[in-house]
Amino acid sequence: EDQGRLVLSCPNQPGIVAEVTRFLYEREADIIQIEQHMDEHFFLRVVFQCDQFERRIEEIRQQFAPIAESYEMQWRMVSAARKHRLAIFVSKEGHCLQDLLWRFQTGELEAEISMVISNHADLKPLVEPYGIPYYHVPVTKETREEAARIHMELLEPAKIDTIILARYMQIIPSWMTQRYRHQIINIHHSFLPAFAGAKPYHRAYERGVKMIGATAHYVTEELDQGPIIEQDVKRVDHRYSVEDLKRIGRDIERIVLARAVRWHIQDQVMVDGNRTIVFSGI
Amino acid sequence: EDQGRLVLSCPNQPGIVAEVTRFLYEREADIIQIEQHMDEHFFLRVVFQCDQFERRIEEIRQQFAPIAESYEMQWRMVSAARKHRLAIFVSKEGHCLQDLLWRFQTGELEAEISMVISNHADLKPLVEPYGIPYYHVPVTKETREEAARIHMELLEPAKIDTIILARYMQIIPSWMTQRYRHQIINIHHSFLPAFAGAKPYHRAYERGVKMIGATAHYVTEELDQGPIIEQDVKRVDHRYSVEDLKRIGRDIERIVLARAVRWHIQDQVMVDGNRTIVFSGI
Amino acid sequence: EDQGRLVLSCPNQPGIVAEVTRFLYEREADIIQIEQHMDEHFFLRVVFQCDQFERRIEEIRQQFAPIAESYEMQWRMVSAARKHRLAIFVSKEGHCLQDLLWRFQTGELEAEISMVISNHADLKPLVEPYGIPYYHVPVTKETREEAARIHMELLEPAKIDTIILARYMQIIPSWMTQRYRHQIINIHHSFLPAFAGAKPYHRAYERGVKMIGATAHYVTEELDQGPIIEQDVKRVDHRYSVEDLKRIGRDIERIVLARAVRWHIQDQVMVDGNRTIVFSGI
Amino acid sequence: EDQGRLVLSCPNQPGIVAEVTRFLYEREADIIQIEQHMDEHFFLRVVFQCDQFERRIEEIRQQFAPIAESYEMQWRMVSAARKHRLAIFVSKEGHCLQDLLWRFQTGELEAEISMVISNHADLKPLVEPYGIPYYHVPVTKETREEAARIHMELLEPAKIDTIILARYMQIIPSWMTQRYRHQIINIHHSFLPAFAGAKPYHRAYERGVKMIGATAHYVTEELDQGPIIEQDVKRVDHRYSVEDLKRIGRDIERIVLARAVRWHIQDQVMVDGNRTIVFSGI
Repeated sequence: EDQGRLVLSCPNQPGIVAEVTRFLYEREADIIQIEQHMDEHFFLRVVFQCDQFERRIEEIRQQFAPIAESYEMQWRMVSAARKHRLAIFVSKEGHCLQDLLWRFQTGELEAEISMVISNHADLKPLVEPYGIPYYHVPVTKETREEAARIHMELLEPAKIDTIILARYMQIIPSWMTQRYRHQIINIHHSFLPAFAGAKPYHRAYERGVKMIGATAHYVTEELDQGPIIEQDVKRVDHRYSVEDLKRIGRDIERIVLARAVRWHIQDQVMVDGNRTIVFSGI
Repeated sequence: EDQGRLVLSCPNQPGIVAEVTRFLYEREADIIQIEQHMDEHFFLRVVFQCDQFERRIEEIRQQFAPIAESYEMQWRMVSAARKHRLAIFVSKEGHCLQDLLWRFQTGELEAEISMVISNHADLKPLVEPYGIPYYHVPVTKETREEAARIHMELLEPAKIDTIILARYMQIIPSWMTQRYRHQIINIHHSFLPAFAGAKPYHRAYERGVKMIGATAHYVTEELDQGPIIEQDVKRVDHRYSVEDLKRIGRDIERIVLARAVRWHIQDQVMVDGNRTIVFSGI
Repeated sequence: EDQGRLVLSCPNQPGIVAEVTRFLYEREADIIQIEQHMDEHFFLRVVFQCDQFERRIEEIRQQFAPIAESYEMQWRMVSAARKHRLAIFVSKEGHCLQDLLWRFQTGELEAEISMVISNHADLKPLVEPYGIPYYHVPVTKETREEAARIHMELLEPAKIDTIILARYMQIIPSWMTQRYRHQIINIHHSFLPAFAGAKPYHRAYERGVKMIGATAHYVTEELDQGPIIEQDVKRVDHRYSVEDLKRIGRDIERIVLARAVRWHIQDQVMVDGNRTIVFSGI
Repeated sequence: EDQGRLVLSCPNQPGIVAEVTRFLYEREADIIQIEQHMDEHFFLRVVFQCDQFERRIEEIRQQFAPIAESYEMQWRMVSAARKHRLAIFVSKEGHCLQDLLWRFQTGELEAEISMVISNHADLKPLVEPYGIPYYHVPVTKETREEAARIHMELLEPAKIDTIILARYMQIIPSWMTQRYRHQIINIHHSFLPAFAGAKPYHRAYERGVKMIGATAHYVTEELDQGPIIEQDVKRVDHRYSVEDLKRIGRDIERIVLARAVRWHIQDQVMVDGNRTIVFSGI
């Protein structure tokens, strides 16, 4: 592919769009998509078509660097052809994992699933047919740090870009969330900030809410407090038992997680404080 | 109308439906609608057609009393023709009030709006064309109790059944919530339990949620903790400012409140601990 | 299990609920759920608990028959423990099949998938791990009748209750839809009655609709005209290509179909002319 | 206000965004919002801040004209401060009119409602308190053309930009739809293309759909076939009577229409064949 993406954020200042689009035009990069957002900061995502982009990418990056510097930009320029390398963490619940694997298999999810890591052996049979390595790393409260170090020994050599917590019911140490800042996506089985923490469906039942939901968010040091990427809900009523909520919730969870992963790996998500900007979130 | 409603709850026990339906059948009351719910308790709502029901209602109530007693029922039997008497409390935001008045005027809301009470004079012009009394009772933190006593002097002689807090931004003293237990409906401008308390749209914006909502609930002693009657949500994204959330929220609030009021006055809502059962919630 | 279900419809007449509930009470069958609907006809579904119901079912059916006759009921009384026997028909698109298999495997879908029938060999690998027979029966316009006869030779000995057309892109002959009246469920990839027939996503794109949907319905003689069991939609906008609509549509289709199948096999769906009544559709 | 908007469409060609943004930058117009869409054509909407824009608008338009010509653009450049002049057409149903008036009064709808035209006198009392002229122009099948001529005599001198058919149940002659091309917005009470034409709620009931909807679209020569601006739906089930569908439909209709009007008057809607592009549709 000759498609590239430029995503950037910087302090607000006039002329940024003009400068960036002129830069691309002068390099014969045709803009396919441009989206911008402005609050206290400025955010831009440009998708462009450019002959032999993969070959020229380093050169173009170097040419862009001075502009970026003058506007104090945080930025990255990537080839759309480059596939994200994912590690999926799971515990015993397989519905999100199964869904991601299926989307991967059908080509809907254009990424490389490099490994699955679990604190249980249960889901190994689900993964095996795909030829993806499944690492069983047991975790207890006492061994959390040690387990995380084992995880790192698996993740680092594999050059993992993004970790997906697909109903991985364990806490990630904060040094690891910092190492993979805005690169760990968790699916929480409630409409956050409602019912953060444990047993959200039980608590939703007890509170008598009329809708349940799921939330995909970046993992930060504080449990279930990171920037939200996507949420969805489904109407329920007094007839739904906790078991019904869990059953219905599974369908929401896997769809919300799949959307978040899709947008993340296509560089559509930018983090703005504790909020996310999701460009072209379709 | 010759239509009646029987709503009841009691400890679970076999034969209740058979007993109740036989009782009605023997009185030539044709069942139009029957709905039941069972968890730890048993809940039943029956709508029936019965010749000259309004005339016979006292007699039928007396005949039902022994059955009710034997099953330890909490129950009421009412004529569908009887209109609820409502008092609407407002502050300065008029959208929910305006919406209720409009539904009342077009006959969609079959109740009697006996009065509007406000801590401000602002919305008086909105109410006047309807010929509904508008009482301006200023409230400060210090005068809350006194104001509530003035409220009671307005409500009691008017035999108000239900109080609607249509964006009334004041706290109701707990003795008053107890006096009108499950008869005060509040609309809160968030998807509870998320963003209980003040400034929910600001907090929703800051948290970066991808949907905002509104919640109609019965008012209890604890702020925004009462049984939820109805909720709805609308998808938003990073482009929505706090002002946009407020604007969009108004449409959710008024529809959620209107549904809750409709169901309440048609005896469709039963309270089960801190949950509600909404029969035929359409 | 000792759980039974009675579903019935009949002309409207007073006393039906009383009669049926008394009948069950006298047989020590405790009512767990009762739902009724009334328009020009009367519809009732009762779920009850009854000791040794599977052993006594024939006897109770015979006792109920005179009542059923006097009210001109269409009715059936079944054991909840009895599993529906399903045949799934597919062509080349695997997402609905895959989803049903997964729900079957996790125990969410309490039915027996007796066979998968396809006019293509493509999806055989998807089915094989489950040990479910996969029959490849090629179909052309000319061989449609012959293919249907082969289908019948597979379905009849296996005592199939229900046929699921999980994106089976072939027309079923009308003699077969009559043989399996209200026992064939199709998933159509549009919000019917919009875009009945071929290529609904292309037509939705061209018409510029702002939501796309899917519809599960019983198959009748007329294409895409049968009673609708369930529908759902998802918001789209001008940015969605036909490919995006297809991708998003897959998620709607599989969830809508799964719900319809679930409700059908639990005897929650009754047909009322060309409409369906879905009791406890949760 | 010093805010301006440029909306344009043209054949696809590289460099358009660069050219337009450079043009604005050179005139010290800061881009606040830029959105683009590309299929066979190219569509752009830019919102910008520019000192004394209202004074300079003619000059800037003239400077932009050569660029527009070279790219074969269809374009307009307007001041955000300029208010659209609306005429609202109604028949007897007042809910959409009432809703628009209320949004107008609260300042949510930033337009000028210049007149209300109706084929009935019924809704005059609703309009009078606002001091907006209400013209009663009776229409029969025979007098349709004549009525339209009377309409034009009201509309033209008032320099009406946009006509809102707020449940105006009459057909507009095609010469009038051509005169106000993409400037007449109709609200149809179904999810188009389902149930185009008369009595959509009755037909939705008979078809047994599980969701009902409403559609705001531009009026073209063919009834209910014009480009769709906005749609929304609400879940229903077998319990909803036709009257219930109408009641629930009113809430969908007025919200869908209000959104469409809002987007239209802020120049967010562009027509692309029979599809619409809605920029920043929030």
